[in-house]
Amino acid sequence: MPTGDGRKRARLADVAQATGFSINTVSLALRGSPRIPEATRTLIPRAAQRLDYLPNHIARSLANRATRTIGLIMTDIMNPTLTLAARAIERELSAAGYGMMFAASDSKVANEKKALALFQSCQVDGILIYPADHRDLDHVRAIGAAGYPLLMLAQLPEEGLEVVAVDDRAGGYKAARYLIAKGHRRIAMLDGGRVLHNREKVEGARRAMQEAGLASEALIAIDPCGHGPANGFAAMGEAVRRQPPPLAVFASTDSLALGALSWCRDHGVAVPDQVAIVGFDNTDVAAFCEIPLTTINYAADEVSRLSVERILAKIADPDARARTATRLIEPELIIRKSA
Amino acid sequence: MPTGDGRKRARLADVAQATGFSINTVSLALRGSPRIPEATRTLIPRAAQRLDYLPNHIARSLANRATRTIGLIMTDIMNPTLTLAARAIERELSAAGYGMMFAASDSKVANEKKALALFQSCQVDGILIYPADHRDLDHVRAIGAAGYPLLMLAQLPEEGLEVVAVDDRAGGYKAARYLIAKGHRRIAMLDGGRVLHNREKVEGARRAMQEAGLASEALIAIDPCGHGPANGFAAMGEAVRRQPPPLAVFASTDSLALGALSWCRDHGVAVPDQVAIVGFDNTDVAAFCEIPLTTINYAADEVSRLSVERILAKIADPDARARTATRLIEPELIIRKSA
Repeated sequence: MPTGDGRKRARLADVAQATGFSINTVSLALRGSPRIPEATRTLIPRAAQRLDYLPNHIARSLANRATRTIGLIMTDIMNPTLTLAARAIERELSAAGYGMMFAASDSKVANEKKALALFQSCQVDGILIYPADHRDLDHVRAIGAAGYPLLMLAQLPEEGLEVVAVDDRAGGYKAARYLIAKGHRRIAMLDGGRVLHNREKVEGARRAMQEAGLASEALIAIDPCGHGPANGFAAMGEAVRRQPPPLAVFASTDSLALGALSWCRDHGVAVPDQVAIVGFDNTDVAAFCEIPLTTINYAADEVSRLSVERILAKIADPDARARTATRLIEPELIIRKSA
Repeated sequence: MPTGDGRKRARLADVAQATGFSINTVSLALRGSPRIPEATRTLIPRAAQRLDYLPNHIARSLANRATRTIGLIMTDIMNPTLTLAARAIERELSAAGYGMMFAASDSKVANEKKALALFQSCQVDGILIYPADHRDLDHVRAIGAAGYPLLMLAQLPEEGLEVVAVDDRAGGYKAARYLIAKGHRRIAMLDGGRVLHNREKVEGARRAMQEAGLASEALIAIDPCGHGPANGFAAMGEAVRRQPPPLAVFASTDSLALGALSWCRDHGVAVPDQVAIVGFDNTDVAAFCEIPLTTINYAADEVSRLSVERILAKIADPDARARTATRLIEPELIIRKSA
């Protein structure tokens, strides 16, 4: 192992060779074993010091310092958008010679803290985070402030952390604006982001309503308590019980939209003629479901390219770790059949 | 730190207290420093040995030895069945006080080797593996043979590794037997397992064909070169070009079946009247797609319960690590609308 000045540091075998003793004797002498004669026990540590001897366990720890591994914390490993982004990031990192490990917080801050500790104890070189709670980030800020390279993959309400994310607010705005342009004046929003305190999609939709001169009650927010198809199915049932029933639905994930579509099919409601549905994410399934989904594209490629570029820059340059820029990727509306 | 027999092992401060020397003197003496008088340098190591002294770096390494973390290697983080199982395993481990980290091999053995090295360097207590190649496992066997607690989550053609898995062969058999019972005499199999050399589902389907007295050509195997909806869409197009076109399709994953359903919709083919489709996995989407899928249930709950039980047993008991039992979970056929 080279030292800072380029000189090679000695290992056990080097000390043995320089002193003429066996590796075993050198090892025992360095540990002060009474089995080794006093003269030898004095001579060997001196030689070790002269040779800049590095004990094995310290050598290992130094060698491990650059693990060339990045940790990614997801909120939910079942979320197809996050796993799509995770795979894109993994491939991008792999091309740069980095490995990747994942952990999932299950959208719980306590689990996120555990995952952060796990990754730090593994000495990963940097950490990417889909935050469990967009409003509870002091523990993350503390790690960033301590100089650990990390990057957030979600739009956050406050500064102080480096962010690369899809612009959820712009996506919410585009989804609602599209429905308004189609003539809708009331929109039900199946808002799966509530548990994470992710309010950007709702805020974007509200802005589109305001611009169109619609009252804030025209956006009917419904909490599906999750983001999967079963949650969307139940939330759609709740939406149509509102009076009058909304004729347009903006689901904060495609999985929720899929459940809403399924509810409409089961209840003989024609999509998009009777109810228009817009999703968010542009997952695999969005294009292949019975009524292909009009949705907002989660640009996983851009997220992966930019986030890998930024985290590697932070790893390479300690000065870059203090920077906390926010880079938002504007998502596109993908028009298909559901709205 | 307790020893195996429950006795606490001494640290530097304990040796200092027992001998009356300062911690600094004890530390120097244990390192054989010539600054310490010879008599002291003999006395202190003896006292340390008597007290069962544990040097700090070894204490740290021992403490680190139990990271209470399990590593899971998936073939593809985008595979909804694997992520479902991953989440179930994570929750089961969490209840047992263990954390979990994931890595993905992208179905490439070279990546699997990297992930194994990564997890070992992080000193995870055990590793669970969805293998990248069911026929290329010598590198995994070597790690198991070295006493590392590990467990395979796929049915394997050979003995020598501990396995907890859904019985793919039984699942393939049930899927084909069901289609045969419905009167089908030719079945196209969209076989996404080829890249992994996972032949169990095909073998099960073949057995059902044989039992029904059908020729082996009656099972038309098509390689979709992947397991997602787009692969299923293309493979379905290929299936119907066979002469005469098969009227029954067994897709090795629900995602493939979803793509096949989508192809049928786009081409005006009625499911199940003109073509019957059976999937495999019973994913979220299977129940919510336009024509709810008849499928084979991947029992993620059972897989997680049994695999966590087995890996924790191996961690607790070194003797259990040498055991290489195979536990297969028989999957159920879920009859819905697509066949």
